Amino acid sequence: MLTFDLNSDLGESFGPWAMGDDVAMLDIVSSANVACGFHAGDPAGILRTLQQAKAKGVVIGAHVGYRDLAGFGRRNMDPTSEELVGDVIYQIGALKGLSTAAGTRVDYVKPHGALYNTIAFDERQAADVIKAILSVDPELVLMALAGSPLIEQARVAGLRVVAEAFADRAYTADGKLVSRREKGAVLHDPDVVAQRMLRLVREGVVQSITGTDARVEAQSICVHGDSPDAVSMAARLRAVFAEEGVSIRSFVAEGHA
Amino acid sequence: MLTFDLNSDLGESFGPWAMGDDVAMLDIVSSANVACGFHAGDPAGILRTLQQAKAKGVVIGAHVGYRDLAGFGRRNMDPTSEELVGDVIYQIGALKGLSTAAGTRVDYVKPHGALYNTIAFDERQAADVIKAILSVDPELVLMALAGSPLIEQARVAGLRVVAEAFADRAYTADGKLVSRREKGAVLHDPDVVAQRMLRLVREGVVQSITGTDARVEAQSICVHGDSPDAVSMAARLRAVFAEEGVSIRSFVAEGHA
Amino acid sequence: MLTFDLNSDLGESFGPWAMGDDVAMLDIVSSANVACGFHAGDPAGILRTLQQAKAKGVVIGAHVGYRDLAGFGRRNMDPTSEELVGDVIYQIGALKGLSTAAGTRVDYVKPHGALYNTIAFDERQAADVIKAILSVDPELVLMALAGSPLIEQARVAGLRVVAEAFADRAYTADGKLVSRREKGAVLHDPDVVAQRMLRLVREGVVQSITGTDARVEAQSICVHGDSPDAVSMAARLRAVFAEEGVSIRSFVAEGHA
Amino acid sequence: MLTFDLNSDLGESFGPWAMGDDVAMLDIVSSANVACGFHAGDPAGILRTLQQAKAKGVVIGAHVGYRDLAGFGRRNMDPTSEELVGDVIYQIGALKGLSTAAGTRVDYVKPHGALYNTIAFDERQAADVIKAILSVDPELVLMALAGSPLIEQARVAGLRVVAEAFADRAYTADGKLVSRREKGAVLHDPDVVAQRMLRLVREGVVQSITGTDARVEAQSICVHGDSPDAVSMAARLRAVFAEEGVSIRSFVAEGHA
Repeated sequence: MLTFDLNSDLGESFGPWAMGDDVAMLDIVSSANVACGFHAGDPAGILRTLQQAKAKGVVIGAHVGYRDLAGFGRRNMDPTSEELVGDVIYQIGALKGLSTAAGTRVDYVKPHGALYNTIAFDERQAADVIKAILSVDPELVLMALAGSPLIEQARVAGLRVVAEAFADRAYTADGKLVSRREKGAVLHDPDVVAQRMLRLVREGVVQSITGTDARVEAQSICVHGDSPDAVSMAARLRAVFAEEGVSIRSFVAEGHA
Repeated sequence: MLTFDLNSDLGESFGPWAMGDDVAMLDIVSSANVACGFHAGDPAGILRTLQQAKAKGVVIGAHVGYRDLAGFGRRNMDPTSEELVGDVIYQIGALKGLSTAAGTRVDYVKPHGALYNTIAFDERQAADVIKAILSVDPELVLMALAGSPLIEQARVAGLRVVAEAFADRAYTADGKLVSRREKGAVLHDPDVVAQRMLRLVREGVVQSITGTDARVEAQSICVHGDSPDAVSMAARLRAVFAEEGVSIRSFVAEGHA
Repeated sequence: MLTFDLNSDLGESFGPWAMGDDVAMLDIVSSANVACGFHAGDPAGILRTLQQAKAKGVVIGAHVGYRDLAGFGRRNMDPTSEELVGDVIYQIGALKGLSTAAGTRVDYVKPHGALYNTIAFDERQAADVIKAILSVDPELVLMALAGSPLIEQARVAGLRVVAEAFADRAYTADGKLVSRREKGAVLHDPDVVAQRMLRLVREGVVQSITGTDARVEAQSICVHGDSPDAVSMAARLRAVFAEEGVSIRSFVAEGHA
Repeated sequence: MLTFDLNSDLGESFGPWAMGDDVAMLDIVSSANVACGFHAGDPAGILRTLQQAKAKGVVIGAHVGYRDLAGFGRRNMDPTSEELVGDVIYQIGALKGLSTAAGTRVDYVKPHGALYNTIAFDERQAADVIKAILSVDPELVLMALAGSPLIEQARVAGLRVVAEAFADRAYTADGKLVSRREKGAVLHDPDVVAQRMLRLVREGVVQSITGTDARVEAQSICVHGDSPDAVSMAARLRAVFAEEGVSIRSFVAEGHA
């Protein structure tokens, strides 16, 4: 039976401010990228999300970001290597502690927002994140942008890497994401999205924005959960996959369920 | 040979702001209470302190505090139990991560400032801290105020507890700290301090502010390192102990050195 | 024609996290307590709320709080007087700056959450807040809990004070708020609430939780806007007032509309 | 008699962490760039610095920065225009409030660190800062890097601009700062520095790193105060200026003294 990983960003509430519907999403995804407190997430809220993920057998990833709560980690920054290495270790450690308390564990790291985009192509900051992961737990898998140079850089350094595609994003003919600033970059029809991802899973291709097929090597699909529409799209994707015999399962062999 | 633990607060710099002389103190103490980022300490600076502590064989404690950087964790707060449990787990986890990266480990927890003082007597917040420690690592030792109800509460809950005395503080006739608001509460003569602590180590007593001997059951002595005078006092204490055949050694049996 | 002030807490979003429906509430209230960044509110979001308030002629108050974003300013704290005076001036100044940019101005100060509750009865922290207001702008009105000692303390110090009642709260026979921990402390029926507030406006009394009438001297009524139900209740209150010939108007004589 | 402005960064302590010797520097400079809480400075500490500046007749500038306390505002960031405009207004407003409380006022704005360097050349972020200043107080003077495009951009927008030179920095033949990454970029001899600045004041030139004279149009000189050596260099500069008949005086005509 064909299986594939679905991941989503969770644990992104902060104090009195709610974000996303973690309970709903944990019924859909196999992997939860859980905020670590720097771009979002307060410890008590993170712990609740981890307990819910544990209850539902969802695998945990550390969603590490820049120290930028007001900007939600979406603003580019240029920390020194010493700062970035420290910040990433700190966040992974904190999430490991909370995961232990929730009876689960951290299996992978997915950088968030501006850090995610930066290390996909910036070798220096990528090296800092890789160094941080290796120094705190070399068994952690790195989740990275499909087609980005980061993948090879991390593998050479000794990390296991999982590449991810984005369910609601258009791709160029050579398998890159179409920039959000361009028209048609974001897809809104849940059925179109589901069918595209089905091809990705079965054939390793998505139809590009120019109409040709683009090869996208990915072992995980990212879905959003920050709005009711996003949750619906993710649920539709899972339903179509189920109908078509594709089971949602983590890339972590043993899983938790 | 008689041995005793000396502990001090370290890793309390933040970003561009330095505090204390960690390198000097790590030659004096056997246990380092290392800041975890909530009252002080940025990850890169904490990591440096941990690497230095590792190099000198000093045992590491998580110096967890309230989330209050501007107030340095010295202001009383009343977080909910859910908040406090989460915050303490988060900080311990973060320090564990950084300690792993530094090739060392966290052996104990010493709450900081207002949290330290509050849980010495406030059963609810004490229970939260105890719960947090048990949920993340029940092997961690809790360092607590000598003579406080917290000690029994934590032991009943299953934690190993080490009681500490303060080298530069006066004690009441029944072994309590004299409030800082009272005259004579803080001692300034390094030789007087060293001789008092020598009696504590040998006889389990200190001369109280009223002249009588007060019994103080402690397994560690806290010294300050936040000023040149404080470092000198700590160094004097260690020198006098050495002359008198008292060796400075962690309460953690195996130690690290 | 009878007029009365309605106030509500606004501008409490932070970065990516939304809170409340400021646009809807600005059609209902005459006074907006706008967050100043310490318990909630980022500058860009605060500025938007101020611009909307200006467009609708709603008077602005500085909703100053403790420096506690994670706890939303709801946790008790004991800052030093120097800290509290500085923090309150800073927040008022920041909101004044943003108000100038929005073409409006700050007319009053309403402390938030734990600070509000604390200074109602704690003379020391109350004196700090009063001192802060006097030092930055003695023309600012202080909005305070009806029946609290703060009112007299602030008036003696030279501030104009407006007392406020809470629309959805039960009162004791002597005109104090029933603690939230007690049953029946919070009212949920919009019509009951509207009728109670109508009596407050006309007769200066509310029926207490024991059935007797309680005198409550207030010049403003606080309504909530942090949920759709809260907005509905506030809208109902305004509608009933309109039907009964009570016009919603700020206590600031000249108003802005 | 020849007069010239000397400015320095002050108010950069935070909570328990001290930075710089504000009292000493306020005897040397005519203009104080006072931190506004985003890169450094807590309200109580800022207020103390403002009170001292008032007592010594030193003119106040708002030293606004990115919201990056851990990085001291030295890390590049790319806030949206809405965020940057809001953040700058907020900081200026806060400092205005504290200045009023201290009996003084804010006369100019000098962006800090990465924001300073970015807006010297980045037209978009420069426009945001200019818009913020104009919207909160168009009388505020902008202090900007001598020779940078920002100067013309701000003047066209209607701001008064003061250009500044850096006392301890080498200049290229065309009057630009030599990058800190290059050898010889920072000067250490107080007498050399004083003589160079004397030429700047008298002739509008400094000897460039290649030996030729470079024209530097500046109306203020920035000196550092973050170390005893820096304070000595600043004091030497003032002393040499006094010997040579150059009086230290703010570019604000009326001054405060």
